[in-house]
Amino acid sequence: MLIVADENIPLLDSFFGDIGEIRRVSGRSMTASDVRDADALLVRSVTRVNRELLEGSRVRFVGTATIGTDHVDLPWLEGAGIRFSAAPGCNANSVAEYVLSVISLHAEKQGLEDWTNLSVGIVGVGNVGSELARKLERLGFEVRLCDPPRAELEESRQEPGENFVTLADTLQCDVVSLHTPLTRDGSHPTFHMIGQQELAELSAGQLLINAGRGEVIDSSALLERLAQGNSPTVALDVWEQEPRINPELVDRVWLATPHIAGYSLEGKVQGTEMIYQALSQFLGLPIRKKAGQFLPEPALSKLSFTSSADEEDAIRIALRACYDPRRDDARLRHAMDGAPAERGPAFDRLRRDYPVRRECSSVKIQLKGTSKSLQDSFRAIGFKLKI
Amino acid sequence: MLIVADENIPLLDSFFGDIGEIRRVSGRSMTASDVRDADALLVRSVTRVNRELLEGSRVRFVGTATIGTDHVDLPWLEGAGIRFSAAPGCNANSVAEYVLSVISLHAEKQGLEDWTNLSVGIVGVGNVGSELARKLERLGFEVRLCDPPRAELEESRQEPGENFVTLADTLQCDVVSLHTPLTRDGSHPTFHMIGQQELAELSAGQLLINAGRGEVIDSSALLERLAQGNSPTVALDVWEQEPRINPELVDRVWLATPHIAGYSLEGKVQGTEMIYQALSQFLGLPIRKKAGQFLPEPALSKLSFTSSADEEDAIRIALRACYDPRRDDARLRHAMDGAPAERGPAFDRLRRDYPVRRECSSVKIQLKGTSKSLQDSFRAIGFKLKI
Ligand SMILES: NC(=O)c1ccc[n+]([C@@H]2O[C@H](COP(=O)([O-])OP(=O)(O)OC[C@H]3O[C@@H](n4cnc5c(N)ncnc54)[C@H](O)[C@@H]3O)[C@@H](O)[C@H]2O)c1
Ligand SMILES: NC(=O)c1ccc[n+]([C@@H]2O[C@H](COP(=O)([O-])OP(=O)(O)OC[C@H]3O[C@@H](n4cnc5c(N)ncnc54)[C@H](O)[C@@H]3O)[C@@H](O)[C@H]2O)c1
Repeated sequence: MLIVADENIPLLDSFFGDIGEIRRVSGRSMTASDVRDADALLVRSVTRVNRELLEGSRVRFVGTATIGTDHVDLPWLEGAGIRFSAAPGCNANSVAEYVLSVISLHAEKQGLEDWTNLSVGIVGVGNVGSELARKLERLGFEVRLCDPPRAELEESRQEPGENFVTLADTLQCDVVSLHTPLTRDGSHPTFHMIGQQELAELSAGQLLINAGRGEVIDSSALLERLAQGNSPTVALDVWEQEPRINPELVDRVWLATPHIAGYSLEGKVQGTEMIYQALSQFLGLPIRKKAGQFLPEPALSKLSFTSSADEEDAIRIALRACYDPRRDDARLRHAMDGAPAERGPAFDRLRRDYPVRRECSSVKIQLKGTSKSLQDSFRAIGFKLKI
Repeated sequence: MLIVADENIPLLDSFFGDIGEIRRVSGRSMTASDVRDADALLVRSVTRVNRELLEGSRVRFVGTATIGTDHVDLPWLEGAGIRFSAAPGCNANSVAEYVLSVISLHAEKQGLEDWTNLSVGIVGVGNVGSELARKLERLGFEVRLCDPPRAELEESRQEPGENFVTLADTLQCDVVSLHTPLTRDGSHPTFHMIGQQELAELSAGQLLINAGRGEVIDSSALLERLAQGNSPTVALDVWEQEPRINPELVDRVWLATPHIAGYSLEGKVQGTEMIYQALSQFLGLPIRKKAGQFLPEPALSKLSFTSSADEEDAIRIALRACYDPRRDDARLRHAMDGAPAERGPAFDRLRRDYPVRRECSSVKIQLKGTSKSLQDSFRAIGFKLKI
């Protein structure tokens, strides 16, 4: 069988090499003639998958190595009897690690000795939000969850479920972290969900993080709020009108990153793994391969701490040695210094040429004579321990 | 013999325990009656050592575990036949590591791939300046040195010596790092040496560091320059009118730290070691002890990198895991948020209660299959290698 695949999907050969012949094409410029004789098509978010691309082709399976499916015409695929699969949650851990790093930096900025004294409100408790909640709860943070669609679903099913609160309740937390999709319809649309009124509820000392979708925050209202006194600290990974984002907003927020919270290598490779699993299932083949076996050696492989280590310090050092969002912040600000017409392409380039970033699980932490609680904290974050 | 010592000098027992009896007193409130029956007096910069303190006492030796001697009336001691010794250069390596960390952060901010592409001008090439120059040159930076007093001395002695340049020449460098003492007289006074005219020479993209003495820069001129366009990036560790420093200046500079560049534990312990050596010599005792043997285990003991490591990344991660000046910057900014009358005491507290900071030499770097040049760079900075 022939598998046509976006050349930028990592580890194509490792996962699909023995399933069929692989034809690599550019995701951005893929045409109907590229895919006509393919049995399976593997894409990322840069390829529009629709009737125009697939009508008349042999394609029976489409997999996207991404969590989003905006680029795929799902009803048409279903009508055409083409099996479709995405990679939901593949980068949830990467985003959760980004948020932990941001919270650790914020705690330092606030002069806090113990970061777990911060309460964290999570808005949108899907794959990302629940992974983040799990880590924070294990670390001992007070966590409040807001997800009206899930709350209603669990209520209608009379499931016990989570103890969800309102958006207004989460806005009382020291940290508010947004992880909803962008929706304009339904009973809980997220478009401009954080507007003038919600921003007025936040004040200095509070931290607002958006690593969901840019349009969930009304940027004009945010700019206004940041120009007023007593304004909250803001960390944005996602923006309205990407890639042509507002440079003034970059200037005003504390941490500005180019939509890369989910860009760990592990996240990308898990995206491939998930469509490999789906294709194997579709073809009735056994699932023998795992993402872990193909991950290269990490640049930083081990950190050793001794019993002299202060708990907060050790975690801070390890987290930042693994991933420090200030680096991506510096890159984005630098890109925004360019000419106006250059900024959009520069934003895209930062994402396309993103350096290899590894998750905490790639770093072994060696602890000699440290407390049980430090070991637990490292494990809660996702580090591998070597005691 | 009786040794009266400031209780805040580290490792008093380890170094002096078998030389004599040690009487610990508060350095700030030390009086003539505390020292009357002492044979040797060991102080830090908080004790004024003069006729008032020592006249009529048995003291024959005074050692200060600091590089500065402003607190000591040297002519009076000499007249009284009291041997005096300080600890010049004990914290030079600590300051050099602070500057390297600052330069690495600046390179990242500038979007530079290779930090050694920055040229560095060093003004004041004494203990600190020459230690810094040595490291930078080994790393491959272009370094320019400015030290008119040394230049004149070497010329008068017709020594070959260094190739010194003018202050104007160093102001052309990408980074200008100040390491002069504060002098108001002589042919090269440093008081307000960097004023309106010099600041006008600097522009955006350049970095000005002051870890010498605050009054070497005219702060009013600096504030004015920073309010203008195209202004340089500024990192200040020292300030005019410490501890009552100008909060507006803290606000305007990029990195603001509370005069702690030299505050590594190694630096402090070397201060004790140097007066131990001087006292032993004075007493005709053998010098058997070394600072290294008393240093406690560091919190972070080892970092392991693999052949996947990018050279710049590995060095950046290691440097910052060891010491990240942004942490001290966060602390100082937080202290400046307090009420005006509280700021001075807060500045002093940050210095008095400074957390244990270790130098790069305390961290073992394990490199597996990395390049020779990466090994050289780690060694140049001062890390211990374990290959
Ligand atoms: N920044 C990044 O790099 C990055 C990486 C991964 C995901 N994301 C984005 O993060 C968002 C969440 O991703 P995910 O994988 O967790 O998606 P998901 O679909 O698993 O979860 C989204 C959750 O949001 C909830 N939700 C919907 N409307 C809501 C509302 N009005 N208020 C509160 N909650 C609401 C849903 O019920 C769902 O539980 C997505 O928009 C995704 O595109 C960004
Ligand atoms: N920030 C900190 O924590 C920290 C730590 C250590 C030292 N310091 C300060 O740094 C300064 C340097 O310390 P050091 O131990 O290297 O002192 P040092 O006496 O060894 O060196 C000072 C050098 O500056 C030179 N100099 C004097 N006037 C000059 C001028 N007009 N232009 C250029 N050079 C001039 C001298 O010739 C000398 O070589 C001191 O003021 C010291 O107090 C600060």
